[in-house]
Amino acid sequence: MSQYLAALKERLGQLSDIGHAASLAHWDQQTMMPAHGSAARAESLATLARIGHELFVDDQTGRLLDGAAGELNGAHPDSDEARLLWLTRRQWEKARRVPTELEAERARAGSVGHEAWVAARATSDFAGFAPCLNHNIELARRYAECHAGDSHYASAYDALLDDYEPRMPSAAVAVLFEELKRELVPLIAQLAGAEPVDDRPLYARFAVDGQRRLVDHVVRLMGFTPEEWRIDDTVHPFAIMVGAGDVRITTRWDEDFWATGLYGAMHECGHGLYESGIAPAFLRTPLGSAESLGMHESQSRMWENMVGRGRPFCGLLAPRIAELAGGELAGIDAHGLYAAVNRVKPTFIRVEADEATYALHVILRFELEQQLIDGSLQVSELPEAWNARFEEYFGIKVTDDADGVLQDVHWSAGMFGYFPTYALGNLIAGQLWERAHADLADLDGQLAAGQLLPLREWLREHVHRYGAKFTTAELLERETGESISVGPFVRYLKAKLSEAYDLDLVAPPAIN
Amino acid sequence: MSQYLAALKERLGQLSDIGHAASLAHWDQQTMMPAHGSAARAESLATLARIGHELFVDDQTGRLLDGAAGELNGAHPDSDEARLLWLTRRQWEKARRVPTELEAERARAGSVGHEAWVAARATSDFAGFAPCLNHNIELARRYAECHAGDSHYASAYDALLDDYEPRMPSAAVAVLFEELKRELVPLIAQLAGAEPVDDRPLYARFAVDGQRRLVDHVVRLMGFTPEEWRIDDTVHPFAIMVGAGDVRITTRWDEDFWATGLYGAMHECGHGLYESGIAPAFLRTPLGSAESLGMHESQSRMWENMVGRGRPFCGLLAPRIAELAGGELAGIDAHGLYAAVNRVKPTFIRVEADEATYALHVILRFELEQQLIDGSLQVSELPEAWNARFEEYFGIKVTDDADGVLQDVHWSAGMFGYFPTYALGNLIAGQLWERAHADLADLDGQLAAGQLLPLREWLREHVHRYGAKFTTAELLERETGESISVGPFVRYLKAKLSEAYDLDLVAPPAIN
Repeated sequence: MSQYLAALKERLGQLSDIGHAASLAHWDQQTMMPAHGSAARAESLATLARIGHELFVDDQTGRLLDGAAGELNGAHPDSDEARLLWLTRRQWEKARRVPTELEAERARAGSVGHEAWVAARATSDFAGFAPCLNHNIELARRYAECHAGDSHYASAYDALLDDYEPRMPSAAVAVLFEELKRELVPLIAQLAGAEPVDDRPLYARFAVDGQRRLVDHVVRLMGFTPEEWRIDDTVHPFAIMVGAGDVRITTRWDEDFWATGLYGAMHECGHGLYESGIAPAFLRTPLGSAESLGMHESQSRMWENMVGRGRPFCGLLAPRIAELAGGELAGIDAHGLYAAVNRVKPTFIRVEADEATYALHVILRFELEQQLIDGSLQVSELPEAWNARFEEYFGIKVTDDADGVLQDVHWSAGMFGYFPTYALGNLIAGQLWERAHADLADLDGQLAAGQLLPLREWLREHVHRYGAKFTTAELLERETGESISVGPFVRYLKAKLSEAYDLDLVAPPAIN
Repeated sequence: MSQYLAALKERLGQLSDIGHAASLAHWDQQTMMPAHGSAARAESLATLARIGHELFVDDQTGRLLDGAAGELNGAHPDSDEARLLWLTRRQWEKARRVPTELEAERARAGSVGHEAWVAARATSDFAGFAPCLNHNIELARRYAECHAGDSHYASAYDALLDDYEPRMPSAAVAVLFEELKRELVPLIAQLAGAEPVDDRPLYARFAVDGQRRLVDHVVRLMGFTPEEWRIDDTVHPFAIMVGAGDVRITTRWDEDFWATGLYGAMHECGHGLYESGIAPAFLRTPLGSAESLGMHESQSRMWENMVGRGRPFCGLLAPRIAELAGGELAGIDAHGLYAAVNRVKPTFIRVEADEATYALHVILRFELEQQLIDGSLQVSELPEAWNARFEEYFGIKVTDDADGVLQDVHWSAGMFGYFPTYALGNLIAGQLWERAHADLADLDGQLAAGQLLPLREWLREHVHRYGAKFTTAELLERETGESISVGPFVRYLKAKLSEAYDLDLVAPPAIN
C-alpha cells in the first residue's frame, strides 16, 4: 500500500475505534447502565466526540488526503481507493467547519437529552423535557450555521438532513412525499370504508417467554448467531455494530401487542445484516458504514414488512405463534395472521404503524422539524401543533403526549433530519424488492420455507458489501436502473392490501 | 478556581472520560460481548490507550502543572490541590518515559491475551496460550526498561509493581511475605493435624436461582442499589466503576460450590464500595481512584472474609441459606456454617482458597512472576515450575493446568506485579479491622443484625473518601498509627480459627 494512503488508513482506523467506543457507550446507556450513571456517561461521550473530531479535522488529515491522492496514479474513479479518498475528503471538509466544542456539546446534550426524554416519556411530562429540546434545537441551528457557506444546502435544515441522507435536498424529499401522500391518503380512505379485517389476533395475549422463543427462531433464520450478535431489551429499539463481529440489536416486549417484539426484532436484525454484510476490507474506514439512512432503513423495513408481514412467511409464522402463544392465538392460521398484521388503521405510535399510515407519521415529523429549525414553530407550541396536525392526518385525537410528541427518541438526542429517511427507506425497499423478485425466481417459495439466507445473500451482493462506496442514488441506478421513486412501493403495497382485504386496490378507482 | 488549575482539571477530566470508555469496554468484553467481537475490541482499546497516553504525556500537561503549582500560594502540602499536583506530576513523569506505541500495544496485547486465555483455560491448553504470555512478558520488560533510569526501582519487576502498589519495593514485600509464611506454615500444619471441621456444607447443592436471591439480599445490605450498581455473570469476577454513579460487579456461580457466588459478590461489592465512596470532588481527577491495589484489596477481603465469613454475619446467613437452598443445607446452623466456610484446606484455586492458605497462593505467583520478568524462568518451563512449587507449598499435585497455571486472568492481560497486592490487602484489612472494632463498640452486634452500613460509613470516613490523596503508607499511619504489618492479620486469623476449630491457636505452642 502507498505510504500516505497507509498513514491515512491508520488515522481513519483510530477514528473508527473511537466511534466503536462511543457506539458501545450508547448501546450500554440504553440497555445496561444504572440510572445514576447518566451524567458521567454524557461527559464521556462528549469527550469521545471531541477527541474524534479533533483528530479528524486536524490539518494532518488534509495532508494525508493530498498525499494519498497523489499516489492514486490514475486509478479508476470507482476504485475503492478513489472512492475512499472522495468520501473522506467530503466528510473532512464538512467536519472542519464545526468547532470541536460544538461537537462535544452536541454529544453531551444528546446524552443528557436522552435521559430527560426517558423520564418525561414515562410521566408524559413534555414541559420537563422542553428545556432539553430547546437546547438541542439551538445546537442544531448553530451546527447548520457552520455550513451556511456551502451552496449544496438551500436551508439550515438541508445541512442537517445531509448528515443522514447525503446529497438529498429537503425539496426533493418534499416532492416524493407529496406524491406518496397523493397515493396513500385515498388508499387509506378506501380501506377505512371497506369491510375491516379481523385484527383481534394482534391484541391477543402472548407471554414474553414465548415471544422470546419466537424471535430467537426467526432471527436465527435471518442469520443471527450468538458468536456475532446480541439481542437485548430496551425502551426504544435500535441496532448498532460495536465493531467487526459484534452486532447488537434490541427490541421491547408487550404481552398485549406481541407484534412489537417480533417485528421490532426483525426490523433491527435487518439493520444489523446490512452493517455486518459490508466488505471486510472497508471496515475501520468511512466506506465501512451505510451510505445513507434511507438505504439502511430500506433493509430493516424490507425484513420487517416485506418478509415478516409477507404472505409466504406468515405461512411459516402462524403455526409457530399458535404453538408458542396458545390461548386466543392457538387457532390462528396463515391468512388470519397475514390480514391482522397488515390491517390498515390510524394509530398513535409510529413504530407500531401499518405500512400505509406509516409514511404519514414520518411526513408529520418532517414538516414539524423543519418549522422547529427555521423558527416558525416554538417548542412551547409543539405539542399543540403535533396534536392538531395528527388529528388532521389521522382523524384521531392525541390525549397523552407519551403517545404523541414524546414517543420518539430522535429529537431528544438532537437528531433533526433523521425522520424522513424512514419513509425514503420504504421507497428504496420497494425498488429493491421488485429487483430481488426478478433475480430470485423462487423467492416466495424460499420465504415460505424459512430459507431466508438466499435473500440475505442477494442483498449482501447487491447492497450491503458496498458500504458507503456509492451514494444511494448511484447504487439504486446501478442495481435497479432507476432513481428513487414512489411507484414500486405503492405497487407492492396495493397488491399486498388487495390480498389482505380481498379487494382490488390495484386497478384505478371507477369513475362515478 | 485558578486558571491553570482549571485547565489542568479539564484535561484530567477528559483523561478520566477516556478511562471510563475503556473501563466500559473491558467490562463489556468480560460480560456481554459476542465472541467474534474480540479483535475489534482489542483495536478499540489500543486506540483509547494511545489517545489517552498522548493527551497525558503532552508538554502542555507539564505547562499546566507548572502554572498550577505557581497558583498554589503556599497552600498546605496536604491540601487537595497540592496533593493533586504532586500525584499528577508523578504519574506524568512516569508516563512520559513510555512511548505511545508501547502503551497501545500493551492494551491490544492485553485484550488479545484475555481472549486467548479464556479459550486456553476452557481446554487446559497452556501451549496455545504460551505465545500470548511470551508477548506480554516481552512488553512488560520493554515497559520496565523505560523506567530503568528511575532510582526508585531496584529491578524491572519493581517498576511493574509500582503501577499497582506505588512506592512499595518488592524487597519490602518479600520481607512481609517471609514473616507471613513463618506464621502461616506452622498454623496450616497444626490445623492439618487437628480434628477437621465438617466442610460438607460447602459442597451441598444450592441452585443458582436461590444463590442469586441470597446474593441480592446481602449486597443490598452492603449498600448496593439498582440505581447505581449492576451485578452480572462472568468467568473471572471483577468490579469496575464505569463512571460516577455507575458501579459494576460480577460474580460466577457453581451449584456444587455455592461459596464462589456469595463470597465473590461480597468481595467485588467491597471493591465497589471503595470506589463509590471516594469524595465526589476528586472524581475525574487522578485523586478519584484508589491509591494502591493493596488498599483496594483490603476492602474487598474485609467484606468477603471478616464480615462475610465472620461469626456474627454467619448467624444471619445460616437461616437464609437454609431457607433458599433447602436440601442438604436445610438444617445448617450458624456454627456449622462458620466452621465450614473457614475450614483450612489446601486447594488448587486461589480465589476459592481459605484465608490461611490464600497468602501461599499469592506468594507462589509473586515468586514465579519475578522469575518470568528477570528471565530466570522461561514460559515453556512455567507449568512445571508452577506444579513443582505448588506441591512443595500445598502438598497436593496439580493435574490440570486449568486448575493450575491457567486459573488466573492477570498474566493474560499483561498484569505482572499485581498478585502481591492481594496478600498486602489481607494485612491492611487486619489493621483496619482492629481499628474499626476499637471505634465501633457494637460492630459485632451490628453485623449480626445485618446492619452493615455503619461499617461502610466508618470505612468511607477513614479510607474511601481520600481516594489517592494519601499514599497507602500515609493513610495507614494516619488511621492506625502504624506502617503495614503482619501482626493484626495473624491475630485476627488465629482468633477466628481457634473458634472455628475449637482449639487455642492464639497461645504460643507448648515447648516439648
